[in-house]
Amino acid sequence: MRERIAPRTGRAFVVRRGQTLTVIDPSGEQVSDMLAFARDDKREVISSGRSLDYASRIFLTTGDALYSNRSRVMLRIVEDTVGRHDFLLTPCSRDTFRIIYGDQAPHHGCQGNFERALAPYGIDADDIPVAFNIFMNVALDGDTGALKVNPPMSRANDYIRFVAEMDLIVALTACSAPQSNNGSFKPIDFEVV
Amino acid sequence: MRERIAPRTGRAFVVRRGQTLTVIDPSGEQVSDMLAFARDDKREVISSGRSLDYASRIFLTTGDALYSNRSRVMLRIVEDTVGRHDFLLTPCSRDTFRIIYGDQAPHHGCQGNFERALAPYGIDADDIPVAFNIFMNVALDGDTGALKVNPPMSRANDYIRFVAEMDLIVALTACSAPQSNNGSFKPIDFEVV
Repeated sequence: MRERIAPRTGRAFVVRRGQTLTVIDPSGEQVSDMLAFARDDKREVISSGRSLDYASRIFLTTGDALYSNRSRVMLRIVEDTVGRHDFLLTPCSRDTFRIIYGDQAPHHGCQGNFERALAPYGIDADDIPVAFNIFMNVALDGDTGALKVNPPMSRANDYIRFVAEMDLIVALTACSAPQSNNGSFKPIDFEVV
Repeated sequence: MRERIAPRTGRAFVVRRGQTLTVIDPSGEQVSDMLAFARDDKREVISSGRSLDYASRIFLTTGDALYSNRSRVMLRIVEDTVGRHDFLLTPCSRDTFRIIYGDQAPHHGCQGNFERALAPYGIDADDIPVAFNIFMNVALDGDTGALKVNPPMSRANDYIRFVAEMDLIVALTACSAPQSNNGSFKPIDFEVV
């Protein structure tokens, strides 16, 4: 059953070990921030630092694993029609819009959407780490280290598919930051099988 | 008062708002992983994702800020004789040595040293995020995203100096991973003024 996350909102749900989770960009050029927490102990969370270290690569794709802070594989990427995702930047937030965009009345962003979606699971703002930013296209200058957020490479119905290697609480957003999605706020679809 | 952290060990201590913290590589080619927690609420921690996002750069140096997960400046870099530090990879750990080096009886690493140093402050293993890896020289390929840990560029008595913008618990290690320090395990010095 394909489900839809409305623009600038988020969802959290359980994915059991062995299930596949597919995240789809239905319109193209949209980003979905993803978090994962171990279902039986929410202190075990997705870790950018461990995942990048073990892969020795910043751009993760088919075959790569997303590790927890306890160095266990939470999810493995089994299909990926885009091949460009970010694991460096935190979810956009009121502070992002204030600091980077200079907004006076900032949107609550993906951070706010994660907080709302995860509250029923007893997970709060401080528990939210660096997300795996699906379809987010961050260009890197290897010499200067400069980061530039470019429009996603995803086209309509591009997707990434994961297999869960443990029981998880997963949260997804339809991204709220203009830089990430080329100024268009679109939905994100997902499917758990 | 310059203090010394013995090879493959760690320390934690309080740095008050307005104090300067200087981290010195006394011998050259050594790495020091650094963590920071707000003294009055240890759930506020150093955040790689926020710091890299707000700087729009991976390599942070003089003038750049290290932000917390609540988007407040914890430390600002005011001097830096090296200019190359890492903020991508997690502290080396038993799992690092097992997964990356294939060790059968792995050392507890910087992760283990952080756990020991921070336990008296009520901070435990799951609270340890991506560290600011002082003097760690991680080369990036902007096209492929490949990461390569090279020997530090630091020479004897090179240093980085921070000003604290809030009261902090800071933890530092003298790194335990052969890749990070060209196979030599050396001390790290620090000074709080």
